[in-house]
Amino acid sequence: MAETDQAPPQSDQLAAMNLTDAVEKHAFSDRVLIRSIVGRPDGGAGLSGQKVRAGGWVKTGREQGKGTFAFLELNDGSCPANLQVIVDAGVAVLSKLVATGTCVVVDGILKVPPEGTRQKIELRVEKVVSVGEVDPAKYPIPKTKLTLEFLRDHLHLRSRTNTIAALARIRNALAFATHSFFQEHNFLYVHTPIITTSDCEGAGEMFQVTTLISESEKLEKELIKSPPPSEADIEAARQLVSERGEAVKQLKAAKASKSDITASVAELNKAKENLSKLEERSKLKPGIPKKDGKIDYTQDFFARQAFLTVSGQLQVETYACAVSNVYTFGPTFRAEQSHTSRHLAEFWMVEPEIAFADLQDDMKCAEAYVKYMCNWLLDKCLDDMEFMAKSYDKGCIDRLKMVASTPFVRITYTEAVELLEEAVKGGKKFENEVKWGIDLASEHERFLTEVKFQKPVIVYNYPKGIKAFYMRLNDDLKTVAAMDVLVPKVGELIGGSQREERYDVIRERISEMGLPLEPYEWYLDLRRFGTVKHCGFGLGFERMILFATGIDNIRDVIPFPRYPGRADL
Amino acid sequence: MAETDQAPPQSDQLAAMNLTDAVEKHAFSDRVLIRSIVGRPDGGAGLSGQKVRAGGWVKTGREQGKGTFAFLELNDGSCPANLQVIVDAGVAVLSKLVATGTCVVVDGILKVPPEGTRQKIELRVEKVVSVGEVDPAKYPIPKTKLTLEFLRDHLHLRSRTNTIAALARIRNALAFATHSFFQEHNFLYVHTPIITTSDCEGAGEMFQVTTLISESEKLEKELIKSPPPSEADIEAARQLVSERGEAVKQLKAAKASKSDITASVAELNKAKENLSKLEERSKLKPGIPKKDGKIDYTQDFFARQAFLTVSGQLQVETYACAVSNVYTFGPTFRAEQSHTSRHLAEFWMVEPEIAFADLQDDMKCAEAYVKYMCNWLLDKCLDDMEFMAKSYDKGCIDRLKMVASTPFVRITYTEAVELLEEAVKGGKKFENEVKWGIDLASEHERFLTEVKFQKPVIVYNYPKGIKAFYMRLNDDLKTVAAMDVLVPKVGELIGGSQREERYDVIRERISEMGLPLEPYEWYLDLRRFGTVKHCGFGLGFERMILFATGIDNIRDVIPFPRYPGRADL
Repeated sequence: MAETDQAPPQSDQLAAMNLTDAVEKHAFSDRVLIRSIVGRPDGGAGLSGQKVRAGGWVKTGREQGKGTFAFLELNDGSCPANLQVIVDAGVAVLSKLVATGTCVVVDGILKVPPEGTRQKIELRVEKVVSVGEVDPAKYPIPKTKLTLEFLRDHLHLRSRTNTIAALARIRNALAFATHSFFQEHNFLYVHTPIITTSDCEGAGEMFQVTTLISESEKLEKELIKSPPPSEADIEAARQLVSERGEAVKQLKAAKASKSDITASVAELNKAKENLSKLEERSKLKPGIPKKDGKIDYTQDFFARQAFLTVSGQLQVETYACAVSNVYTFGPTFRAEQSHTSRHLAEFWMVEPEIAFADLQDDMKCAEAYVKYMCNWLLDKCLDDMEFMAKSYDKGCIDRLKMVASTPFVRITYTEAVELLEEAVKGGKKFENEVKWGIDLASEHERFLTEVKFQKPVIVYNYPKGIKAFYMRLNDDLKTVAAMDVLVPKVGELIGGSQREERYDVIRERISEMGLPLEPYEWYLDLRRFGTVKHCGFGLGFERMILFATGIDNIRDVIPFPRYPGRADL
Repeated sequence: MAETDQAPPQSDQLAAMNLTDAVEKHAFSDRVLIRSIVGRPDGGAGLSGQKVRAGGWVKTGREQGKGTFAFLELNDGSCPANLQVIVDAGVAVLSKLVATGTCVVVDGILKVPPEGTRQKIELRVEKVVSVGEVDPAKYPIPKTKLTLEFLRDHLHLRSRTNTIAALARIRNALAFATHSFFQEHNFLYVHTPIITTSDCEGAGEMFQVTTLISESEKLEKELIKSPPPSEADIEAARQLVSERGEAVKQLKAAKASKSDITASVAELNKAKENLSKLEERSKLKPGIPKKDGKIDYTQDFFARQAFLTVSGQLQVETYACAVSNVYTFGPTFRAEQSHTSRHLAEFWMVEPEIAFADLQDDMKCAEAYVKYMCNWLLDKCLDDMEFMAKSYDKGCIDRLKMVASTPFVRITYTEAVELLEEAVKGGKKFENEVKWGIDLASEHERFLTEVKFQKPVIVYNYPKGIKAFYMRLNDDLKTVAAMDVLVPKVGELIGGSQREERYDVIRERISEMGLPLEPYEWYLDLRRFGTVKHCGFGLGFERMILFATGIDNIRDVIPFPRYPGRADL
């Protein structure tokens, strides 16, 4: 009992009070949210006696007591734990319920099971409301242990497994954590374009977006159905025009009646129209339209060549340079033949952009954001994280705690190279040579964060030669204000920079890199007119999930992975 | 003062307390959030005497008192209101500060201005920290009134205008409201794919995603640089192989030394390798690879034809049929030659999917979601909504209030047609004929919601002939469990349905519509194994913004509009 009457209820007491509350329901549905039963501190015991409707999919089921009753482990996706359901043979045909994957909706009463069982509560069924059956002989993902690789061939059913469902909840949590973090910090969410005509970044190979092929195929079919006119058809039409013209001339010369002449002119015009239509059609050629030997993109949907975006950064900068703090969170694309466990052709990126801020502010923001996500998972997804720790990576929860609570190390690129060179002297072997000027390889990054510091490391001020033109040139004229956040397990999680806001300098940098100025004129305008100090970074969303969960292959942490040769569904 | 010491402070009192707080800062930056000054109930007056750093863009500026000081209206994007800034000539060169679009960072002291001014607070500048200048003669969007149409030609700068900035804040608010609504109701956010190989929905023309064109262009360039071997080159290589073969044969016949033979065989193998390389290269043909007269998509990036998604519904259903309530919120695409103010080639859609729920639940969810968004805007964006009301649509705030508070009318399609027929009898003229079986045209929808009921209307149970195959067949066998939500100003805002969960029925419906079964096998699997009653809907996100703000052209409510002939940036 509370010690004083005046004191407001403490959170433990509130929890105790809630134990007697009614169970929570799924929104817009009459069934209970299974998490609100089995996810309670008391495992649901306090709900004993309540009548509920539950719906979900059978994870495992078995008939017991010589077929007099069945146990079903029911899961509705709201949490990793199942609700234990008991059905008597008198209530339903048990054999139709027990197959893994069966969908059932049942009415029943929550009861505390006999002692000695793991469950704190179970549902005793009074009525089976509906059943979506499964023929276990045909079910592609039966109960047996399935590899993640096997599941990739069954994208449409793999979310019914514990692992993919847990990853869906973790991904959902991280996405909402992302929005919550930036909204709390007064960033505006900006939808940058997916289809882009800016081939600006040189970030990688791009997918082309076009209607030219389908249009040419349509035309090809059309021309087969009704072939273009022959030279003879056109000649005949031309002949007709000249005959009709002659007829008009004669009528006029003969001073025929006005109505006769009018009729004759009308005939002439009809013939002319027909001729021009035929001539037009004769020009139609199957195949993709060309001009001067090149594809004629003026005939494509956007009247120019268009691609899928590789980053929303340049576009989101237009908003940062107008409304201050913004972020984008959307799909990005790379048409690279990467068959690794770390690359996807379609993946999601989070890209904040901060106005009136420099590289130090950028690092602060990146660190705060990563910590926020770690805390969010520990706070809201601990059951799923426990599942990942048990099944895939026993250190994943400790890693989240460590990152959430440890200040990130900050070292310059030059210091990083020195540390790596020291390590080499000490006998450490790297596949890639270490010397000032190289881009750090994944093995270098992981050495720094996993071995040398054993915590997150931010490396900043990289040589300008290995970084993009838009990164701000430092006063040493050798390095740019770029930074990468390295974390254990995945290495580089974030890449960012202060942007070059000085018009003359960025113009010079574009030219220096051998890039044309014209496509960047709009980007230069941001520096020409009311320029502002600003910075930003990009976080690969799937990398964050790999880091959090310890899953090895990026194809398993996105619902519908796209990679060379595969884009199922 | 509070009436009793015990009572917790009321919200009014809390607000009063906060008035003496320090101003709020932009996250990760040292400048103040202008909203936290001018957006206070007291207009900022309570902050008088505080020293702050402010940064933003000059909306209007003018020199006064014969050039002894300047007024600047400074905006940082955090709200529609500006902070009035006063700079003395002794502090800075005033002419460099006053041009519209200039970016300034200033330190100063907040002071209550002399009576008779509109502002409640102004900033008296002590130091100008930095200036991003503007040459007003060159600035593409000077202060003069600019049309929205003109601004579409300056996408990279238009967010600096009051209207586009207000729309950015409203769009951001609606996006976060969307996530908040679904998260509060225990829906999981699922990222459905952007690139898809399912051409399933028949929802419209699709954009093709390909690397075939760029690959063939690469090859073409490569072949120009180093042309394929000629027939003579190959013949020569063939000749060499036979000579080398002959040499080996002779050495063997002559029982030459082992090392001589080995060397000779090595020469032969080199010649063979060279020949096969040349033969391989001679097969290279510029142009898109073909097989049997058709484009050979096995050579495309995904080894088959791929498109941009028109809807995430079918894919998100795979998650609903595994983890219950889910939603997707992402970009979708239509390659249609629509030059209207209502269509975009790239737009954002919100698509929830609810398991264990029917059409009634679907309507409840849709109504709750729309009301939630209306309340969110009234609660969090009232200043921006007031700007829209003043500048574009004086009724927009009342419309939000009405929709937030009025139960949506629900009528069947059959009732809707009867009402329209009555209206026609009463003298109402429609361009499109009204009779049972037609798809309702926009004019019909707007008549129902704007004239007949003057509130939101949900029309449900449409004739099956005009709806998609996946909508659940009603017991009358004539209609399907579809529903559209109609609202004043835009007409159809939401379209949804209960999905056909019966395996036999949906199979039959696919065939009935003349569609092939094979591409739908994965979708059928969801009904074959553990099928569940479920429903969902789609909301066109830009339509919601049009509805909320009264803006007429959809190209103005998305940051980077894509439509036929245009995809700037």
